[in-house]
Order: sequence, then structure tokens, then C-alpha cells
Amino acid sequence: MDPFGILYTDLYQLTMGQVYFRLGLHEREALFEAFYRKNPDYGAHQAGYTVFAGLDPLLSWMETARFGNEELEALGALKGRSGKPLFAEDYLRYLKDVGGFSGLTVRALPEGRVAHPQVPLLSVEGPLLQAQLLETALLNRINYETLIATKASRVREAAGEEAVVLEFGLRRAPGKGGESATRASLIGGANRSSAVSLSHLLGLPSSGTHAHSLVQAFLALGYTEEDAFQAFAEVFPDDTILLLDTVDTLHSGLPHALKVFERLRRKGHRPVGVRIDSGDLAYLAIQVAKELDKAGFADTLIVLSGDLDELVIWQIKSQILEEAPRYGVEPEKLLKRLVYGVGTRMVVSWGYPALGGVYKLVAIRENGTWAPAIKISDSLEKVLNPGHKKVYRVYDGRGLATADLLATFDEEVREDTPLHLRHPTDPTKRRTLRPGEFTLEPLLEEAFRGRRLFPPVPLEALRERRQRDVARLDPGVRRLVNPHIYHVSLTERLFALKEALVAQLSG
Amino acid sequence: MDPFGILYTDLYQLTMGQVYFRLGLHEREALFEAFYRKNPDYGAHQAGYTVFAGLDPLLSWMETARFGNEELEALGALKGRSGKPLFAEDYLRYLKDVGGFSGLTVRALPEGRVAHPQVPLLSVEGPLLQAQLLETALLNRINYETLIATKASRVREAAGEEAVVLEFGLRRAPGKGGESATRASLIGGANRSSAVSLSHLLGLPSSGTHAHSLVQAFLALGYTEEDAFQAFAEVFPDDTILLLDTVDTLHSGLPHALKVFERLRRKGHRPVGVRIDSGDLAYLAIQVAKELDKAGFADTLIVLSGDLDELVIWQIKSQILEEAPRYGVEPEKLLKRLVYGVGTRMVVSWGYPALGGVYKLVAIRENGTWAPAIKISDSLEKVLNPGHKKVYRVYDGRGLATADLLATFDEEVREDTPLHLRHPTDPTKRRTLRPGEFTLEPLLEEAFRGRRLFPPVPLEALRERRQRDVARLDPGVRRLVNPHIYHVSLTERLFALKEALVAQLSG
Repeated sequence: MDPFGILYTDLYQLTMGQVYFRLGLHEREALFEAFYRKNPDYGAHQAGYTVFAGLDPLLSWMETARFGNEELEALGALKGRSGKPLFAEDYLRYLKDVGGFSGLTVRALPEGRVAHPQVPLLSVEGPLLQAQLLETALLNRINYETLIATKASRVREAAGEEAVVLEFGLRRAPGKGGESATRASLIGGANRSSAVSLSHLLGLPSSGTHAHSLVQAFLALGYTEEDAFQAFAEVFPDDTILLLDTVDTLHSGLPHALKVFERLRRKGHRPVGVRIDSGDLAYLAIQVAKELDKAGFADTLIVLSGDLDELVIWQIKSQILEEAPRYGVEPEKLLKRLVYGVGTRMVVSWGYPALGGVYKLVAIRENGTWAPAIKISDSLEKVLNPGHKKVYRVYDGRGLATADLLATFDEEVREDTPLHLRHPTDPTKRRTLRPGEFTLEPLLEEAFRGRRLFPPVPLEALRERRQRDVARLDPGVRRLVNPHIYHVSLTERLFALKEALVAQLSG
Repeated sequence: MDPFGILYTDLYQLTMGQVYFRLGLHEREALFEAFYRKNPDYGAHQAGYTVFAGLDPLLSWMETARFGNEELEALGALKGRSGKPLFAEDYLRYLKDVGGFSGLTVRALPEGRVAHPQVPLLSVEGPLLQAQLLETALLNRINYETLIATKASRVREAAGEEAVVLEFGLRRAPGKGGESATRASLIGGANRSSAVSLSHLLGLPSSGTHAHSLVQAFLALGYTEEDAFQAFAEVFPDDTILLLDTVDTLHSGLPHALKVFERLRRKGHRPVGVRIDSGDLAYLAIQVAKELDKAGFADTLIVLSGDLDELVIWQIKSQILEEAPRYGVEPEKLLKRLVYGVGTRMVVSWGYPALGGVYKLVAIRENGTWAPAIKISDSLEKVLNPGHKKVYRVYDGRGLATADLLATFDEEVREDTPLHLRHPTDPTKRRTLRPGEFTLEPLLEEAFRGRRLFPPVPLEALRERRQRDVARLDPGVRRLVNPHIYHVSLTERLFALKEALVAQLSG
């Protein structure tokens, strides 16, 4: 049995399915929405947005996941406390007949786009049983990939849109979750990954240097660090990046590298760069740049690695801007030659390791109309925005995104009439936009209707979506620390529906 | 190409491999060790030990990972900056001939056992190229699984060895890394997982209840919460656990559940339990227990869920011990009927999301003897313990583990002579144990020699190993907050070797 097949899910999806089946509710049309409640808060710093990722892998999974004989045998063998089978034969036969997710329609935010709390990332419409069964796998994919794409986007913003960011995290990635980590990192902001098979399958070359063990092996055999560097340079004369800190960055690694670079140059090759993996990276980068410049290697790259994240990169850049001139190094030129190798802290989303995305029933079809579903909760923020909905992004006169807007599915939202925005929970907060002051963009698009509706989107296109969307955010929302809160609003009509439902259930 | 095959690795393993190949060093016998430097520090609380996991999946991978035609084609297509192929044909032919990891010998800490910082978890011996190539996949598996097994062990200790802990984390697990998360959770302390296919493949039944959506669906269709409960109970009369908090735990969920339980009882069934997923779980558990007792359901379980971790569970138990008597509920009896559903915070190791395990070259064979390798570093703690080593666990007169001891591979460490222990970095710290005061247990066992040497160990055996080892820890080391530091020591001889190497390289 494929561990990642249709049973890559929680047991309760299948027990609830049997309840629906027994009551004849299993084919009742239902509508679920996936969203998350708050942006990542990393402690010392916070996200003002996320980057949606994980959709393509989810759609591919939906198209292939099937109840086969192995899966049904496994389910048939499960026993309840009475010792009798947990699942009845007629229910399992039904699952076999249904097969998979062919009854579902998915509308989704295009992958790679900027997303915000409380705004549906996906809506799933179809037979209650199928839509319920999708929950775990859907959340498994989009929670993690969105989390990592968001972290990568922050790393990219700290490094600057022009800088090269490499993803080095496979060794600390969560088992086979490395697949999602690499993909999401590349969507969110990394240029390349060191992971070979994953890069290959994504259509990108992998990238890397050498490890400390190369130098260690040479030293243990009685050779020198310079011998190790020289050996590497001879095998990869046009791709030489030398790791400087196995013995001592400035007093051993750098002088040895310079000798080897000099020999490469004499043979007509251009050394690519050096890497520093420990120590005070900003200080060392300045000193290394100074010596490289002096020796005439002003265009070689300086790769920094070792527990980098968005805040560390920001700190390194600030320190270089301040200190480089003191050593006669031009800071802007130095920043341009830096490459950031980011591993652990990107692939585990250091500081906020789980996005709390949820998948909630928001409506169920009864006699041809959608009856809204709601869940009351002690905390007002956890009360669902009910019913079948439409989602818009509202842009202001500068073309910057100013709010995401949720509307009921059947109301008309127009650019040529005043637009009333309501805060989703605070009835005192409202705002009106006049025609001419705003434009509207519908956000969700149909992605799956029994089968996926478009082929996998090339990674490059996803990267461009993210870049374009981030550029349309207010700089305050993009800020790494204490960002502005982006507005998510309801239309008057949706706000009224929510109030009525809460009153009805609470009363 | 299988994304998780032999190219599930970093590019630099393959570029370094070509350097070794070109210099004729690729078949030189090398010794690498995998270890981690510090126990997880979750911020408000800290781990005093870890639980080693990930070995079996690694060994299975090593046995099957192969350079096939697809992998070699992918590598052959990689271009350097000059536009020429990065990898030469003779090198790729060699990789094809070698195939995989048939030259390697792995000695490992048995999976499921307690582990400590700086102590080798695995040693890998064999041709330099193969041993180097294993690095990324090895770290990918053991870093994450050890991290999660450790968190699960803490959750288990907080809940108590007798309590039932369920793993509910698949929806927040990192993509396909859910496979490792479930496995490690079950090794470290969870009794069951909600994940269906993963539980099945591990030979355990999966476990679960129902979701809020069941109640929501009934409400949206004009039925009541009680109808939803009743429907569930009719389909699963001997496996009924009802989720109480969709509307209001005490004023809606509980009274509805009691009515349904009463009907079940009249038909000769025993309701299994209730679940509470939000609110003040300790307070609600007390109130729910009180009402269940009053209605004669004193043996039904109370499942708690919702962002639980070791500290939250500890807090809930403390609060119950203090407050339950005030409501006439016997606290010890209540604790015995609690079941903990732990999800997100276990599978992402909330507070410390990455174990910094490393894989370092420690020796290389030259003229028949092992030449120790070392790496100097700015931070003393990062200096390697060099050379080919043996590893012991030292138990005191009470049978409790008192230290892990690293020795050189060829020295004799005996129980009948005084044992001198040295702190790995602080020369002023030493300790001597007299014969009769201690016993020695060698920790690493041969697990792979060209192929795995024993079949996968059943999960139950791994769970027992963990339980036995944790029981042999000093209670101070097991403490959830501010634990005692477990001693990791070197023999006099290994300490002297390390000092000599550092002096030689620094001098």
C-alpha cells in the first residue's frame, strides 16, 4: 500500500464518512473552506503576509489517490472495541465505487500568490463524504508549504530581490518532507537548492560548494588545506567555490584560497567564490572582500552560510553598511557579491514551526440552496465566516493591495458603486471606498473539477507570481518586524449574515 | 526518477566525490560519525536527553538506493559555468559500478534508546566516496525522527507512563514527513496515531473520534447536535466518542452526549468517551467528569485535544489535582480516565524545530592505521572528538545511567580497574569511579555491512527500549524544566589525543 495514497489521512474522516453514508447524507453537496487564522509570529519578528504554496502537489494527489484493494482490505481489517469490523461491507463497496475525488470542485488562490488570514485559500465543493475525506491531505500539503514559502519570502526580502539565495536545508528537513521544503523555498524566494533529485524534478539545476570533510580528509592524510583547495580547483576549474573556515578563515583558508585562485587565473579560469560557514560572518566577509579585492578577485562571490535566517541576514547587511568603509571596502559592492546559503532555519520555519491552517464546513446544500454552517467558539476570532463566498483583493489608486474582501457568493460587488468594508469581528470598524478610488480582483479560480483543470504551473511562473504580489504590498506590511496589519474585510451583507447566525445559535 | 532515491542528497556530496575519484582517494577507508551537539532547548523548558530514532528507515534506504540510468542521466546533464558537463563520464561510470552503499559498515545506537549530546549515534566506515555520499540522507532521517521521538517522550512523561496519548498531527505535519512524524511519535511515547495508512504500515490500528464538521453539517441541515451524536452512536455503538465543543461544551455538548449515552446503555452498549478540543481543558474536564459520574458513566474516557504539549499537559494535571476536590471530583480517578490527543506541537517539536545533528569525518585509514581527523572551530564545543572510537554507557550502583563514555577504539575499558572520566572540553573537570561502583555497557552495534544485518525491529520493541532506558535515567535528567546535565566523558587516552591534535593544528 502506498503510504501517501488515499489513506494518508486521519481515521475520523472515514468514520464520519460511514455516518454520512448510513444516513444517506454522503452525497449531499457540501462546501468546505481552507484558511488560516493568523500570520506567523516568530517571536522577535512577525510576518505581515504569507505566500500560498502546496496547491499543485495537492491537485496531483487528488487526481491519483484511489481506494484500491489494498486500502479497502486495510480498512476492512480494522476492528472496533466489540471486536467486530469498524467499517461495514456496503460502505467499503461504496468507497470502492466512488474511487477517489472525482465529485469535487476546487476553487483556489493561485499558488505563489500572497495570502492573508481568514481569507479562503481554497474552497472545496462536492459530495459531503468526498469533501470531508480530503481534509487531512489538503491541510498537510498547504500548511507546510505555505509556512516555508513564507519564510523563504522573508529571507528573500532581507537579502534583497537581486541577491542570490541558496536553499541548503535537506539535512535538517523533516524526512521526506524535504520534497515540500525545497519546492516551497524555491517558490518563496530561493534561487537554487542543493538538493539534487528534488531540483532535477523541479527543472532547476542544483547548487553547492564543498564541505569541511574535504579539507579534513586531506589534513588527516598529511596534506594541507591548500592541497585540498587545489585538488578541487583542478577538477572544477570553472566552478570553484572554496570553503574557508575548516582551520581558520583569515589566517589559513583565505591565503590558501588566494594561491589557488591565482593559479586558476594563470590558466585562464575565473574562480567563482569562497564560502564562510562560521564566525562573525559580517566581519569575515569584509576582511575576505578586502583581500580578494587586493589580489584582483573583485568579482568572486562570497557565500555566507551557517544558521542564517531573515533577521541574521538583515543584521549582516546592516553591519557591513556600517563597518565596511572603516576597512576601505565599499559596502554596496560587497553586498552585491554576497550569496546566502540558508538551510535549517528556512526549512523548519524557525520561530514558528506550524501554520495553523484549518478546513471548515461553511455551507451545505438543501433543496437547491446553500445553508450556511457556522461554528461558535469562546474566542470571537475563531467564529467562522459562514456560507458560500466570493473573495476579492482590493487595490488602491497606487495599485497597492489595500484589503482582501469576503462577500456572499450571490451578491454583486462592483467597482462603480461605493464599497462598504466591515471588520470581520469588530462591528465598530468600517470603511467606505468610493468609485475611482479602487479596483477589484477576484482571487479564487477553479482548479479542479473531477480532474485538475490545468497542468502543473512551472516553478518560474509561481516565483513570478510571488514577486509581483509582494511588490503590490504596502511596504509597512512587508516589514520584517512589527508589520502593519493588512485589512481583511467583509461586505455589509456577509457581515449581517454572520451576525444573524451567531445570534440564532447563541440565543 | 524516485525523488527519494540515491539523489535525495546535496550536490556537494557528488562534486567532492569527483575530487576524491580524480585523486584516487575515493576508495580510501574513511570513518564518519553522526552526533548532535546539544539537547533541545524549547525556551521555557529543556530536554535532558533525546530518544534516538530514524535508524530503520535509514538502513532500508541504504539497502535500496542505487545509481540507476535515470540518476546518471540527470547527473550527466548538469552543466558547470563553462557550459561543459559538471561530471565526467568515467566518474559516472564508476558510480554506476559502485551502485550504492555496499562498501559501508554502520555501527549504531539501537533505535529507540536514550541518546546524549556529543556521543556518536552512528559510525560509518568504508570507502570515502560512499561514506561521504551518505551524509545528507542520514542526517535527514535521524535529525527529524530523533527530534520528534524526544518530544513524544516528554509528552509521555508529562502524561504519565499509564496514560493514553494519541498522535493527531498529520494535518500540520511537514508534507510526506508525516511518515517520519508518526513513526517517531509512536517510538517516543504515543500509543496510537490517527494517521490511517501510516499506522497500518507500522502494524498498529489507527485511532480517532469525529470532527466539528459532523455537528456543523447536522446543524446546517436543520437537525440538532444531539441528532449528530445519536447518528454517530448508532453507527458505532461500541466505539462512541463524542466531541463536545462545537456549540458549547457544558451547556450543549455534554447534556446532548449524556442523553445519547443513556440510550446506548439501555441497548446494552458502553459509550467510550467524550472529547473536548477548546477552552479551559482542566476546568471543563472536571465539570464533565462530575456530570458523567452523576449519570453513572464513571468509566468513560475524557479525551483532551487542542495545542497540547508536555507543558500544557503538566499544567492541566496540576490544575486538576488542585481544583477537582472543590467540585467533589476525585482528582486521581479523573487523571486515570484522561486521554491526550497531541498533534501540531508534537510533530513540529514546538519550541525547538530542528535537531542540529552533524556527520563528521573523524578518521581516515593510512597504511593500515586510522589517522584521526579533527576540525578546529572558534567555539570549543564545536571541536570534534577525533579518531576511531568506542562508546559506553556507565551505570552506577543503583543501575542508573551516570555517564556516557567515549574511548579510543583500541583501548581497553574495564569494570575491574578504576575508570577515569574527563570532561570533553574542560580540563579541570575529572572524575574517577572505583571497581564495583559501576558497570559498563557498549552502546553501538553493527547494523549494516554492505546490507542490513537484521530485519526491521518491530515498533513495540523500540517503544520498550525507550521505556527501559528512560527508567534508567536519574529523575533530575528526566525533569521537563531545567534538567540536570547528564555527563558525557572521554577516557584519559582520548582526551590526550584530542589535546595533541588541537595543539598540532593550532600551533
